Amino acid sequence: MDALHSPFARKLGAFVALSEKEVSALDRMHGRRKVFPAGKDMVHQGQTDQAAYILASGWVCSYKILADGARQIVDFQIPGDFLGLRSVLFRTSDHNIEPVTKVEASEVLVSDLLETFSETPRLATAVLWAASRDEAMVVEHLVSIGRRDAKERTAHFLLELGARLKLVGLGATSGYACPLSQYLLADALGLSAVHINRVLRELREHGLVTFQHGQVEIHDLDGLVELADFDKTYLDHDGPLLK
Amino acid sequence: MDALHSPFARKLGAFVALSEKEVSALDRMHGRRKVFPAGKDMVHQGQTDQAAYILASGWVCSYKILADGARQIVDFQIPGDFLGLRSVLFRTSDHNIEPVTKVEASEVLVSDLLETFSETPRLATAVLWAASRDEAMVVEHLVSIGRRDAKERTAHFLLELGARLKLVGLGATSGYACPLSQYLLADALGLSAVHINRVLRELREHGLVTFQHGQVEIHDLDGLVELADFDKTYLDHDGPLLK
Repeated sequence: MDALHSPFARKLGAFVALSEKEVSALDRMHGRRKVFPAGKDMVHQGQTDQAAYILASGWVCSYKILADGARQIVDFQIPGDFLGLRSVLFRTSDHNIEPVTKVEASEVLVSDLLETFSETPRLATAVLWAASRDEAMVVEHLVSIGRRDAKERTAHFLLELGARLKLVGLGATSGYACPLSQYLLADALGLSAVHINRVLRELREHGLVTFQHGQVEIHDLDGLVELADFDKTYLDHDGPLLK
Repeated sequence: MDALHSPFARKLGAFVALSEKEVSALDRMHGRRKVFPAGKDMVHQGQTDQAAYILASGWVCSYKILADGARQIVDFQIPGDFLGLRSVLFRTSDHNIEPVTKVEASEVLVSDLLETFSETPRLATAVLWAASRDEAMVVEHLVSIGRRDAKERTAHFLLELGARLKLVGLGATSGYACPLSQYLLADALGLSAVHINRVLRELREHGLVTFQHGQVEIHDLDGLVELADFDKTYLDHDGPLLK
């Protein structure tokens, strides 16, 4: 894959205007490509000594299982995102990573990060930016579950996904393909599958957004943004900060 | 302040066995020290072009305000933590930062990060580790609000704070000084102040932990860990990963 057009390079390129040397360094990080089937954990809670990955294609979900068996989905990962970066820095994984679809991902070790950061230190800042963006998304999910009602948090979630997909060239403001089941959506938003179903019907009947047959269609962007109180500060950027 | 003994150096030292050159680099990051009074926002949501800080002393809280005025506290910061790192990488702050006590903090600009990362690339990995640890804490807060009941999430919160404070030399497994009001605790845990008060009384009556007069005393660590299903994977480390 041409690193210039990889989702990872598109994403980091939003923070750093990439030089030829930086593009080559990203290329080298894509060296060890692996394929994982849907539905089988790539990494599980408590596992040690696993690698991190950069997701090249497909969708993944990160979740935690509690002692009583309850599941909380923390986030979904899309192409260009890191998988298990925390796990490799912590040595022991604090969460599970499960492919929602078949995925392709490139293995990254701590030694790869060190080598890349030594040769191209601006990429260290870019990876730190990407990690901060991931944290900002978890913050929004925390605020959603803590303070937003079912309709607001569903709208917020669909808007966030759209902005993320657009950045890596996999969606548009008007809509995007989305392989998530209502069951997964429910575990991410802290709602029951029945409740999600009702919320999606209401959003559709109000002419805001339709999510059907694996496709999200946004009919009224301004209305949806207003409903969700969606402030894309944490996702947006007016061109690279580092030229 | 001697960087070797600064909370920030203690924290990063848990991930990287610091060389003399790396200690000097951390020293330089502590150059521009400022003092902020309690109760007045250091950074507010939507603010642009502000600096990031490394907290040297005192406690801080990070929170978001929703359109309807509701507040969600995302986390508290203690000495050694970054403040507003995301804001400086995003250009616009996505949250508010308010000192809980009088604080001292060192200003850090993106150019300081770039310079440090160029000269001492291992510190880039260490800062990435620290940011990942911050993300892991927000993940735990999300899981708490989504899936843990009031007693479990309060216990989890008090254990997490203890582990964090111990790492930077400001607490012990048996207890620590804590300037947080029940009002702040309530906004962080998504509970009412009355509810928090009842939960703390129950935890005390069960002989697990006492939080009174600014002091947390852990009476039964194992019992508290079991109640909270507290897995310190995301905070702990068996000595530096990078020697």
